[in-house]
Amino acid sequence: MAEPIDFYFDFSSPYGYFASSMVDGMAGRFERHVNWHPILIGVAFDETGNKPLIDQPLKGEYCAHDWQRVSRFMDVRWVLPKVFPISTHNAARLYYRLEGRDPELARKFARAAFHTYFGEGRDITSPEAVAEVAAPLGIEADEVHDTVHDPTAKEDLKRRTAEAIRRGVIGSPYVIVDGEGFWGSDRLWMVKKWMQSGGW
Amino acid sequence: MAEPIDFYFDFSSPYGYFASSMVDGMAGRFERHVNWHPILIGVAFDETGNKPLIDQPLKGEYCAHDWQRVSRFMDVRWVLPKVFPISTHNAARLYYRLEGRDPELARKFARAAFHTYFGEGRDITSPEAVAEVAAPLGIEADEVHDTVHDPTAKEDLKRRTAEAIRRGVIGSPYVIVDGEGFWGSDRLWMVKKWMQSGGW
Repeated sequence: MAEPIDFYFDFSSPYGYFASSMVDGMAGRFERHVNWHPILIGVAFDETGNKPLIDQPLKGEYCAHDWQRVSRFMDVRWVLPKVFPISTHNAARLYYRLEGRDPELARKFARAAFHTYFGEGRDITSPEAVAEVAAPLGIEADEVHDTVHDPTAKEDLKRRTAEAIRRGVIGSPYVIVDGEGFWGSDRLWMVKKWMQSGGW
Repeated sequence: MAEPIDFYFDFSSPYGYFASSMVDGMAGRFERHVNWHPILIGVAFDETGNKPLIDQPLKGEYCAHDWQRVSRFMDVRWVLPKVFPISTHNAARLYYRLEGRDPELARKFARAAFHTYFGEGRDITSPEAVAEVAAPLGIEADEVHDTVHDPTAKEDLKRRTAEAIRRGVIGSPYVIVDGEGFWGSDRLWMVKKWMQSGGW
């Protein structure tokens, strides 16, 4: 098995959601595992001076249209959530806690969180909402509440987000393959070419 | 022949340059003509609150790296010009003047301007520099100087840029096919799919 690739995203990122639906399958064809890294992209935006797409005049309208178009093309469920964008620290904290004890479960939770938010349009900001996403996976509400308020989990997410920015993550999604970073779901085809050819 | 597609760009846009090297060939396979529309993307940036990529912290570094990578992948010559970005009103004014009397010549001039700026890294801002690009195509320096100072040519470019923004052009390159707009050279594959399938 070749080196894993790194998939950085924010749970509140539509293009991160679209990418999440295909990144594992794409990498799998090259026998690559994908490490998922939910981060708080707002922290990167503070560094780049960027803003959420939806808050940018004209660009916001373009994107709202584009998300529908991409979802139809990819045949992925899509609802623009009423509350958008959101802060995803609770979901991300739980993700890393789960990853520590059961990576498969963490991946399932991440998919469920994305699906709840962008497939059904239901908010996933609060600890209660995160617990609702987690419950069908057998994750106890107590574990959710303990985690999201745990100083260690808070520090852990902060550290991981800072590390992502150090690695050049400037938006969501962002994929790193063999040290080479690619920003945007529109670049997955190039990530694929890179894995295919070993770079150029 | 199906309806032409519209290709909007700024002569100072690296991704516009990359797209210009393939957009005609791509559309030709679907028997589509491409109308080229150089505009002043800074005017659109004023509306969206956007800034040139190179001036954005971290994003600028990412893009500088990406431009080299994309140029190698596409086998297109690439130099990051010392003076970048630039104001391209003179080149764009000449483009439309030429288009009025000889569309083929206008296209040749546009390719030469892109090549001079991003293929050789030579500035194309001033009327003199534009005249140097135009000379090998048999365009007299007098025509260049007359055009770039002509109030009608100035008004024409203003009007075309405003019309582009009205049509939703928020960046460079931007392609409109059958009323559907696609932003970025990374979306040319989707423009192709759209022409192939008639939309989805």
